[in-house]
Amino acid sequence: MLHIMIIGAAGMVGAKLVNRLCADGELAGRPITRLTRHDVVIAGPPPASSFPIDTFASDLSTPGEAEKLAALQPDVIYHLAAIVSGEAEADFDKGYRINLDGTRHLFEAIRKVAGGYCPKIIFTSSIAVFGAPFPEAIGDEFFTTPLTSYGTQKAICELLLADYSRRGFFDGLGLRFPTICVRPGKPNLAASGFFSGIIREPLAGQEAILPVGEDVRHWHASPRAAVGFLTHAAGLDTVPLGARRNITLPGVSCTVGEQIAALRRIAGDRVASRIRREPNETIMKIVSGWPRNFEARRGLALGFTAESSFDDIIKVHIADELDGKIFS
Amino acid sequence: MLHIMIIGAAGMVGAKLVNRLCADGELAGRPITRLTRHDVVIAGPPPASSFPIDTFASDLSTPGEAEKLAALQPDVIYHLAAIVSGEAEADFDKGYRINLDGTRHLFEAIRKVAGGYCPKIIFTSSIAVFGAPFPEAIGDEFFTTPLTSYGTQKAICELLLADYSRRGFFDGLGLRFPTICVRPGKPNLAASGFFSGIIREPLAGQEAILPVGEDVRHWHASPRAAVGFLTHAAGLDTVPLGARRNITLPGVSCTVGEQIAALRRIAGDRVASRIRREPNETIMKIVSGWPRNFEARRGLALGFTAESSFDDIIKVHIADELDGKIFS
Repeated sequence: MLHIMIIGAAGMVGAKLVNRLCADGELAGRPITRLTRHDVVIAGPPPASSFPIDTFASDLSTPGEAEKLAALQPDVIYHLAAIVSGEAEADFDKGYRINLDGTRHLFEAIRKVAGGYCPKIIFTSSIAVFGAPFPEAIGDEFFTTPLTSYGTQKAICELLLADYSRRGFFDGLGLRFPTICVRPGKPNLAASGFFSGIIREPLAGQEAILPVGEDVRHWHASPRAAVGFLTHAAGLDTVPLGARRNITLPGVSCTVGEQIAALRRIAGDRVASRIRREPNETIMKIVSGWPRNFEARRGLALGFTAESSFDDIIKVHIADELDGKIFS
Repeated sequence: MLHIMIIGAAGMVGAKLVNRLCADGELAGRPITRLTRHDVVIAGPPPASSFPIDTFASDLSTPGEAEKLAALQPDVIYHLAAIVSGEAEADFDKGYRINLDGTRHLFEAIRKVAGGYCPKIIFTSSIAVFGAPFPEAIGDEFFTTPLTSYGTQKAICELLLADYSRRGFFDGLGLRFPTICVRPGKPNLAASGFFSGIIREPLAGQEAILPVGEDVRHWHASPRAAVGFLTHAAGLDTVPLGARRNITLPGVSCTVGEQIAALRRIAGDRVASRIRREPNETIMKIVSGWPRNFEARRGLALGFTAESSFDDIIKVHIADELDGKIFS
C-alpha cells in the first residue's frame, strides 16, 4: 500500500510529477496504490494509471482544510504549493497566509492525527532562502538571510519541517530547488522569466528580451531534474540527516553568456540571434541579490542529480517540450 | 520624547534593564520621557526614576493584546519575553504559542499601526538557534539548525524580524545572547543551571552539583553585559546591516575546568571545594549539542562588548549581587 498525496498538483512541477508517477506505477521501489492530487484549482485530467487518482481543490490556509487532507493519511506527501516570489512580495498578507500559515496548518494537522501516523513529507524550498552578499560558491552550512518575503517564508517552513521531524511528528525533507529552466509555457512577468525566455522563445521562432548583462550568473536545473529530485527524495533514508533536513540540490551554474553560447551550439546562430538586448535597471538590481553558484556537496552525496551542463538543460527542453523539433 | 517599552520586564534581564534605564535617565543619548513595562505577571515595584513608568500584565499571544501595546506607539520596544528552553521542549503548543505566535502578533500589530509608525525593535534571540555539529568557533555566517523547539522559535522570529525590517515596518535588531552567567537567584532545574550554580552556590557558602565533565566548553556573558548589549543596541545605526539584522554577541568561551580555576583564583580553595562532581548522562547528552565558541566578529565590530575572561564574570557577580562579599 502506497498512497501518495501531491499538494500543488496543478502547477508545472506537480503536473510533471503526476505524469512520472503514473508512468512508473511505483515510487522508491514500492507499487503506488493511490494518488491524491490537491491544489487551489482542480488539476487537469491525469494520464492513464494503474491506481486510482482523487483530485481536490481548496485553500490550504483556510481553517479545517489541512485536517481533511491529513485525515486521508497518505504515506508520502509532496508539498509543492506556494505563492510565487513576485506575488508574495507584492501582497505581504497573502504570501504569509499561503506560504507560511498554509504549510504550518498542514504540519499541525499531520501532528494531530492520532495512532502513530508519521508520513514522509517532501517540501519544495528554494535557493531564495539565501540573500547576497555570497561567497563564490555557497556551501551547505551558509546562513539563510533571504531578501524577499517568499524566501523568508520558505526559510521559516524549513525550520518548522526540521523541528517537526526531530520531534517525530513526521519524516520531513526540504529540497532547495534551483531555478527551473527551461520553464515551459508562455512568457510571464517574473523577474527571473528571462532565464527561460531567452532559450524557449528563440527555439519556438520568437524573439526574446534579455534585460541583464551576459555576465549574470545563476543556478539552474531542468523540469525533468526537478521531478527526479522529488522521486529520489521519497527513497532516501533520513536517519543519517539528523536534524539537518533541508538540502541544497545540485544544479548548473552558468552565466547568461554561457546559456546563449549553449543555445548557439545546439540550435545555430539564427536561433540565437532572436535574443534582443534591452537592459532593464530594475531587473538587474533584483537579480544582483540572487544566488549564483552552490557547492551542493551534501545533495550530491545523497544521490541527487541534475544536468551537468546548460547544453543538457536545453536538450531536455527540446526532447520533453518540443518533441525534438526546433524552429530554426 | 523617548518612550521605551520592555516586554518581559519582570524577568531577570528585564528587571536589570529597568534599573539601568532608571539610573541613567537616558538611552543612546536621548532623555527617557516614559517607560512601559509589560510581562505576563505584574513586575515588582520599579526604582526611583525621572520619568513616569506604566506597568501592564497580559498574555501577548492572546488576540488583541499586542494591538494594545502597539497602540501606545513606543519609540523603542525591547522584546525579551519567552518561554524558556526546557518548558518549550516539554510543552510544544505553549512554546510555539508564546515564543512564535506572541512575537508574530507583536510584529503584526506594529505593522498595522497607521501613520508611518516605525519603532526600533530589539529582540533577544539566543545561541540556541545553532545545533551541533559545529566548527571550532562558530562564524557569523554559520547556518541555524536548532536542536530544540525553543531554538527553532527563536530562529523563526529572527527571520520575521529581518523581513519586517527590510519591508520598513519597523527597525529591528535581533541579539543572540550568550548563556547568562552568573545568573542570580535560586538554583533551578534547567539543564544549563549548573554553569551558574557552580559559581553562585559556593560563593554563598553552599554546595553545588556539577553534572558534566570539566572539559565541557560553553559561551558566557554576565547579566551586566546583557544589559549593556540592550542599551548599546538602541543607539546602533542599522542601515549598514542591510537585511542581516541578527547578530551573534560576544562572550567568554571557557571550559567548566576554567570556570572552576577562575573561582579558585578569586575566592580560594575552600570555596572551590564546595563543587561536588555527580555525573549525569542525561544532562551530558543535552549539553553536548550546545554551542561552545563563537567568532562574533560582527558583534564586536558593531561595538558590543562582554567580559574578556571568566574571572571578570565572577567579579561582576560578586560586585552586583553579593555587595562585594564572599562566604569564604
